[in-house]
Parts: sequence; structure tokens; C-alpha cells
Amino acid sequence: MTDLPLAEDAPARAIRSTIDRVLAEVNALSEGGPGWTRPSYSDLESHAHALIEAEARALGMSVSRDHAGNLFARMEGRDPSLPALHCGSHLDTVAEGGAFDGQAGVAAALALVAAMREAGVTPEADFVLTVTRAEESVWFPVSYIGSRAALGRLLPEELEALRVDTGRTLAEHMREQGFDPDALMRAEPPKPARFLEFHIEQGPVLDRAGEPYGIVSAIRGGLRYRAAEVHGTWAHSGGAPREGRADAVVAFADLVMAMDRAWETFLSRGADLTVTFGKVDAASPAHAMAKVPGELAFCLDLRSEDVTVLEAADRVLREEIRRIETERPGIRFDLGTQSRSQPARLSPAMIDWVAGGAARRGDQPRRMLSGGGHDAAAFASAGWDSVMVFIRNWNGSHCPDEGMDPADLARAVEAVFAALSGNGSP
Amino acid sequence: MTDLPLAEDAPARAIRSTIDRVLAEVNALSEGGPGWTRPSYSDLESHAHALIEAEARALGMSVSRDHAGNLFARMEGRDPSLPALHCGSHLDTVAEGGAFDGQAGVAAALALVAAMREAGVTPEADFVLTVTRAEESVWFPVSYIGSRAALGRLLPEELEALRVDTGRTLAEHMREQGFDPDALMRAEPPKPARFLEFHIEQGPVLDRAGEPYGIVSAIRGGLRYRAAEVHGTWAHSGGAPREGRADAVVAFADLVMAMDRAWETFLSRGADLTVTFGKVDAASPAHAMAKVPGELAFCLDLRSEDVTVLEAADRVLREEIRRIETERPGIRFDLGTQSRSQPARLSPAMIDWVAGGAARRGDQPRRMLSGGGHDAAAFASAGWDSVMVFIRNWNGSHCPDEGMDPADLARAVEAVFAALSGNGSP
Repeated sequence: MTDLPLAEDAPARAIRSTIDRVLAEVNALSEGGPGWTRPSYSDLESHAHALIEAEARALGMSVSRDHAGNLFARMEGRDPSLPALHCGSHLDTVAEGGAFDGQAGVAAALALVAAMREAGVTPEADFVLTVTRAEESVWFPVSYIGSRAALGRLLPEELEALRVDTGRTLAEHMREQGFDPDALMRAEPPKPARFLEFHIEQGPVLDRAGEPYGIVSAIRGGLRYRAAEVHGTWAHSGGAPREGRADAVVAFADLVMAMDRAWETFLSRGADLTVTFGKVDAASPAHAMAKVPGELAFCLDLRSEDVTVLEAADRVLREEIRRIETERPGIRFDLGTQSRSQPARLSPAMIDWVAGGAARRGDQPRRMLSGGGHDAAAFASAGWDSVMVFIRNWNGSHCPDEGMDPADLARAVEAVFAALSGNGSP
Repeated sequence: MTDLPLAEDAPARAIRSTIDRVLAEVNALSEGGPGWTRPSYSDLESHAHALIEAEARALGMSVSRDHAGNLFARMEGRDPSLPALHCGSHLDTVAEGGAFDGQAGVAAALALVAAMREAGVTPEADFVLTVTRAEESVWFPVSYIGSRAALGRLLPEELEALRVDTGRTLAEHMREQGFDPDALMRAEPPKPARFLEFHIEQGPVLDRAGEPYGIVSAIRGGLRYRAAEVHGTWAHSGGAPREGRADAVVAFADLVMAMDRAWETFLSRGADLTVTFGKVDAASPAHAMAKVPGELAFCLDLRSEDVTVLEAADRVLREEIRRIETERPGIRFDLGTQSRSQPARLSPAMIDWVAGGAARRGDQPRRMLSGGGHDAAAFASAGWDSVMVFIRNWNGSHCPDEGMDPADLARAVEAVFAALSGNGSP
């Protein structure tokens, strides 16, 4: 699609000013640099939710929270019998994260309301700004905590997960922020409705193609080992001969290269897969330059749109570990607990509805895959008709340099605004 | 050699009881477990030196310290014109180190004096118990600090090295322990004499062969990168496609496997070499399961008895880095500062003298290589006739489980006692 200049009408101005203001407000909150750090169920995340509540109230929306602290702000539609259109994202970040992952989607939802108010548009169905808690699974080893809690899908044992920095449970952190995990477990799940999430792409596809936004048709699922270990034998670096060593770093390097080759093979067969060893720790007080390392800890994250590919990659992982343990006596891998998030197909009707709005604006956004997991995956898994709109970004994501042009986000919001103003409902 | 039972005569009893008592005294001092931690130029190291001073005084020796805090305790010989025989080791440990690395050699030297006193033997040359400071280079990035200081070979700029745990300079730590780095720099180097060091082997050679002790003919030198880094590009683990990734962990794994293959090639050509990546750190606050890692820090320790092999291995390292940087755009290695310790040949005359004592005891210890660096290497480099006696150990070294049978150490001490009692001088 070409970069058409947009007529600077009042709704467009409202969209742009809302996006700029909301991003600036939320990004004023951080534990300190580099980048932005707002942990899940931290005071900073609660503070960011309070800012959005104030924005929603200023737009005349009625505000509520559920027992997990998810925020809902409603703008009533013309037909209360229709399933509501929820729209939003999250406000927590990874440690040393960026200025857009999460907050861009919340700003976009508020911008849609501001544009409808400005244009005097009443949506056909209720429009519910939905700000989730705790989407980033780096803090608690649980996926989509807030959205799964909102959907009645958080498990009681997941409330006992420990936050990596504080060592305290999710339930304790929820209570500390004023919420009620016991009541949450007793709550009835809501009736499925519809969910729309704007988010930066996180990958480089749109940026490389020179396209401002795209429509997501599926979200990759994940198969993860967050606390895997290699056990070998400590020895003296100058005294231990090559034969007889059980070097945890060499065994790990062997696994990394084997999984990297396996990844290439999967892709060459047309399978969708990513393989990432995101954390490696052989730097404890026991590790030293003059010691053959006897221990190493690591994370492994496999993602695919196809659950059978994840399972096949997991089988390759276990075969390679068996091979390494056989070839390198004294080496033993312990993968620890496996966690998963299911791949999610998004709603063809919602995809067509967004594409219709884009066409009215003169855009032809591509259909694409989401590599990252998102709250939209939790809503889709719970039977909600869901869709995502990706905004091009650069410098990757989950890092201080996340790049996004607010004009690209505004353009995507305009497309959805055109859809809401037109046919009104997917 | 066979395990002959030893007649339990008075000198043998003195050797055994001195070894047991000194090891127990020194190993009562530690920052806390696992294992033993006595940092270089710590209060604990000074306390251990004070214990040995008390032991030496009880044996009637005259005690002095140099400006770096090395301890010298002298037992006068029959012929003051002969170069003295220095004998000792160090009392600092790595973090979470073992019960024998260093302290066994100090206990052995005291045991020799106790045996000579018990048997009424006066050595031919002065016998100088020599307890060095700061042998373990994990605390300050400088090799053989204490012995090189004693030899007038510590460089002024090395006094500015920072201790890894405190961030303060070597000079500050020396002063804090009551010593005088300025006077040290002005001191005249001593005239070369002779040096004998008992030490656990640190490797598994003697243990696998079932031999209680051996005589060291050469000490491997080292070529080290203590603070090397891989720089790549941070990205989202699910969003960044395979092509275009610059994953620091994968690039590092590529280097580890390449150097492991190169090591095998060097050995197959008969070269002496060890290759160890002892520390790997990709676990900073910026690293996460859901991020392609953009940074990794590591140590590399190359050791050989032959400096030309070290240089050839370093060339292979740089070639492999160039290959990886070419094959993986966006990856850049920074090896940081290189440090070296020179390989050392020990004294054939001293080796024969120890072997003669062993023969009198009925033992035929093997000649072997030292993989670890030792103070004896610093003395040898300064032109001292030096020798080491290795004691078999198990479970490796520089770890809490370092294993050594005090009876093996006693047997080696008996051999040297026989040498001192016999011909008297190498």
C-alpha cells in the first residue's frame, strides 16, 4: 500500500493526540532505565492502570475492574443484544523493555473512543476498553495471567507461581495491589464476545516491506523450558585432560548448534518454527576462568503456529540431548518443567471487517503471523472472535530501543475507526 | 610404585600430625560454604598467615614478612654460603574452593621442619618456609601476585588491578592488610635461590594411575581472555525470523564448538593444550526467555607447556571469530585484554634430588606436567632452581569436593625428608 496523506479531520486529530498523550503518560512510569520496566502486579503497573482509568472517565466511559485487576471501560453501543467489542492490551513490560509493547494497544483503543466521540459515532455494539494485567510472562512463569483471569481460565495452582524478582506468589502480589484471588477463583467466566488488539509487530517483516500495519491471522504458540540445566563435572582448567572432561559449557554449545541445524531443517520443509536460547548462566560464584564448568542453566523457547511442529521440535531436542549425554559421559541435562501456550487462529470475520475499514481508508494491509504471544491468543482460545492489528516497528522488541512511528499506529486506528463508522460490526 | 607400609617412626609421626593439624587450623577459616573461600588480601588470608607464623615460631624458626605480606620462616642450615631452600605455597582460595589447594603445600613445608626437629637433622642449606599471598588469580586479574612481588617482579600498574568482589585496587587491599606497596616497588629483588612446592595435582592423572605422588618437570603457561564479549542484536524470540538474527548465544556456541574441534586437532598432532570457557554470562536483567540475546560475556583460558602452541591456538581463535563474524552479519566479538603466564621448565637437578629421596623411601614417582599455574612457575621464571611435588587428588580442584588423602601428602613429605636427611642438598 502507498503512504497516502490523510485529510487532517477532527477524528484524525483526536486519534493522533490521544496516542501521543497516552504513550507519554504511561512511559513516564518506569523503575528506571535503560528502557522501561513495569513489572506485572507492581505499583507501577497499577499506577499506569489508574492513568488509563482517568483517560476513560474523561471520555465519559463507565469503568470497572475484575478480581484480578483487569480494567474495563465501556462505551455503550446502539444494540445491547450484540456481543461487545473489547479492545485493548497490557501495560506491564519486560525488564528494560520498550516504549510500545503493550501501551501502544491501550493508546489505540482510547484513540478509537476519542475519534468516535469527536465524530459523534455510536458503535453498533458496546465498545469495551480492556486493559489486562500481567501479560509479560518474564515476571511469573505463567502465560497471559490477566486475560486468562478475566476469562475464568487461570488455574488455582498458577496463583502460587513466584515472581522472579520478589520470590513472592502471584496471589500475594494480586492482594497487595488490592485484588482478590479467592473471589477470582469463584467467579463465573464471561460469555464469549469479541476482542481486538493493536500491538507492535515485534519482528521486522512490516519494517522490511515498508508497510505501516498488517492484520494478524494466527498467533504462534510456544513450548518452553524456563529453568533447564546442564550438569557436568567441575575440574581444573589446566589440569583436567580433554578425555574425561564433562564440560557443561561445551555440552550446551553442542545442543545449541544441533538445535540451530534442526531449525534450518524444519524451515526447509516449510514448517513454521523459531528456536531461541534466551538466557544462559554459567557465571555463578562457583564459576571461574580456571575451572572447567560443572553447571550451566538456560532457557529454551520454541514457537510455531502449528502444535505438531512444536512437538516434533521437542522430540528432536530430546534426541539431541540423548546423543550428547551418550557422547559425553558425565553430562546430564535436566530440562525442568515444560510450559506451553497454544497456537491461536484468529477470526476470519474480524479479519475481513478490519480489512474493510482499511480499504475505506485506501489501505491494503497484509495478513500475517504473530511470532509473539498476545492476550488476543487467550481470548481466541476461550472462543472469542479475535483479531490483531500489527504496527511496524524496528530495533526489535522487549528492548529499550523498540521503534514505532505513532503515525503508523494512528493510520491503523483510522482504518478500524472507518470500520466502526461504516458497517459498524464485524 | 607399591604402597609400602611405613615404619611409624618419630619423624613420620611428626609429619602426619603436623599435616593434619595445619590443614584443620587453616580450614577453620572461610567466608562460609559451600567449600572454602579465603580471598586474596582478605582478613581471612591474613589470619591464616598468622596461624602459620605461630606454628613456625613453635618450631623455633625466625619469622619475617616482605612489603607484600609474604611470610618467611627460617631454619638455619649447616652452610650459610649455600643458596637457601625455600619451601611453601599459598593460603588464599578461589571462591567456593577446596580444602587442599595451597594449604597442603604449607602444611607439608611445616611438616618437613617438624620431622627435621624430631630427628635432630640440620639441613645443609637454610630451609625457608615461604607462604605467599594472592596466588589465585580469580580475585585480581594478575598472575602469582605474592610470589612475583617477593621476586621484585610485580609491575606498578598491576597494583591498580581491581579485586572482582570489592572493586578496590590491589594497592588498597595490601595497605589494608598492613603492607606497603610503595616500599615494595622500591625493594631490591632477592638473589635467586631454590624453591620447592608441594601441591595437589588438580588433574586426575595420579588418581587414575593409582599413584600417591609425582614430580613436576614443567608448568603449563596460559593465554587468557578474562572479559570477552559477543555483541549481537536483541530481538523478539517469536517475532524475529531466522534470517536476519544476530543471536549472541548461537554465535558463542559456534565458537565453543570450533575451538573444541581445534583442540582435538592440536592434540592429534602431539601438541600440549587445554581449552576452557570457564564462565559464560547471558543472564543479565536484559536477558529473557522471550528475547533473542544481543549480548554475552565469557572467559577463555588456553594453557600449554609450549608458548608457540598457545600462540597458534590464539591464531585459530581469531580465524574462527572472523569466520563467525562473516557468516553471521551483526555479530561482533570483543576479546578484551589478553593476559599471559609463561610456561616454566623446572630444575632437572632439583627433580633428581627429590627422586633420590623418593628412592630412599622405596618410591619411584613419575615425572609429570602441571596443568595449573603455581608460584613455582614465578620462582622458575625468576631464575630460581624450582621443583614441585604433586599429590594425587580426586573430584578436581577449585571446588568444595577437592579430595586428597593426607597419607599421600605425608608419603611425599617423607621422600623429601629422606632427601634432606641424606645428601642434604640438591
